[in-house]
Amino acid sequence: MGLKLFELCGQDPVRVFSPFCWRSRMALTLKGLPFESVPWRFTETDRLAFAQHDKVPVLVDGDRAVPDSWAIAQYLDATYPGTPSLLHGNPEPYLFVAAWNDTVVQAGISRLIVSDIPPLLGEKELPYFMESREKRFGMPLAEVTADRDVKLPAYRASLQPMRQALKGRDFLGGAAPDYADCIVFGTFMWARVVSPLAVLEADDPIHAWRERMLDLAGGMARNAPCC
Amino acid sequence: MGLKLFELCGQDPVRVFSPFCWRSRMALTLKGLPFESVPWRFTETDRLAFAQHDKVPVLVDGDRAVPDSWAIAQYLDATYPGTPSLLHGNPEPYLFVAAWNDTVVQAGISRLIVSDIPPLLGEKELPYFMESREKRFGMPLAEVTADRDVKLPAYRASLQPMRQALKGRDFLGGAAPDYADCIVFGTFMWARVVSPLAVLEADDPIHAWRERMLDLAGGMARNAPCC
Repeated sequence: MGLKLFELCGQDPVRVFSPFCWRSRMALTLKGLPFESVPWRFTETDRLAFAQHDKVPVLVDGDRAVPDSWAIAQYLDATYPGTPSLLHGNPEPYLFVAAWNDTVVQAGISRLIVSDIPPLLGEKELPYFMESREKRFGMPLAEVTADRDVKLPAYRASLQPMRQALKGRDFLGGAAPDYADCIVFGTFMWARVVSPLAVLEADDPIHAWRERMLDLAGGMARNAPCC
Repeated sequence: MGLKLFELCGQDPVRVFSPFCWRSRMALTLKGLPFESVPWRFTETDRLAFAQHDKVPVLVDGDRAVPDSWAIAQYLDATYPGTPSLLHGNPEPYLFVAAWNDTVVQAGISRLIVSDIPPLLGEKELPYFMESREKRFGMPLAEVTADRDVKLPAYRASLQPMRQALKGRDFLGGAAPDYADCIVFGTFMWARVVSPLAVLEADDPIHAWRERMLDLAGGMARNAPCC
């Protein structure tokens, strides 16, 4: 039985836009493991009951269900040792990369693009999304992103650790990408899929890195539906 | 022959204050490797000629000279495999921790404490330090730190990735510290040794982590001369 990955989408079943789903999708891609994408929407918690979970990604591998992108990365390394390693037997420092990504890259980008998401959603999940996100941000989503052009320079400046980390290396993983690259790239794919905003300037070393990530596996990520 | 570590000091030969020297000092400490500290001052480049280098730390292990804290960490893992691992066979993600530390933790803290360093220096190295640092900051050092009380809240906020990374873990290395902890702790030791400024609030999880680091090896770092 092949691998299946439950992934978040809106109306369009092939427009996968969760940053965490993109982490798992890229992890499978780096390992060269083919998988079937199973579209899932915010309100379809019943469809994940088999995994005793209520969020995606969920990986299904035969009779095993593995929820949570971090658990999926560890599961894939443990289960498919003949494939390129994601965490190289030592997950701890990748938790730091995830912490930086979540608090800086992802928290910042959400304030630039969140208002671009509602038009992608179907009428069933739209109320859930609007209510939960407006509660999270404490204001209408259009207000969150209203001054995004003003915020963009400070956001780009906040990515400086990534530029420093890429000095002399093609990927955070070194000569080849690893799970550190999946984590940060997942966030940029989220933005790319849902928003027309040019988050990165063309001469930014992070832009060049993102291009390399987009090119992996015959352009898998580059060919994904985007804005 | 025992290990020797050339470390930066000012007038007081036991007040070691380079963040990079502290990385190596903590790396040796985590490995349980005894070493002799060799005091070195900014202008004593001649004394490092044997290592074909002009900065500290320099590790001397018998007839081997290893300059640069990053090279020292890799050398120690390769040369003393029976000791606790610093990089767990995969240095790449630690370069990200270093990049974050250098661009956020260290760059930020230098603007809070740099003016506390000159009084610690001898008359030989004082002109070198003043000239090179005032050139780097583009202003007198007293001006750099003049508004440090105003800058402190934003600096503390910039450390949020570290708080996130420590959730559910005692150290960045997990249950035990590794080189990720050495990197960030080195910066905080620099501040502790040269400045009376309370960089961290007492209820900050990073403060609790720093206390754990200070306690390691019978309080080696806690017992170091500080302000």
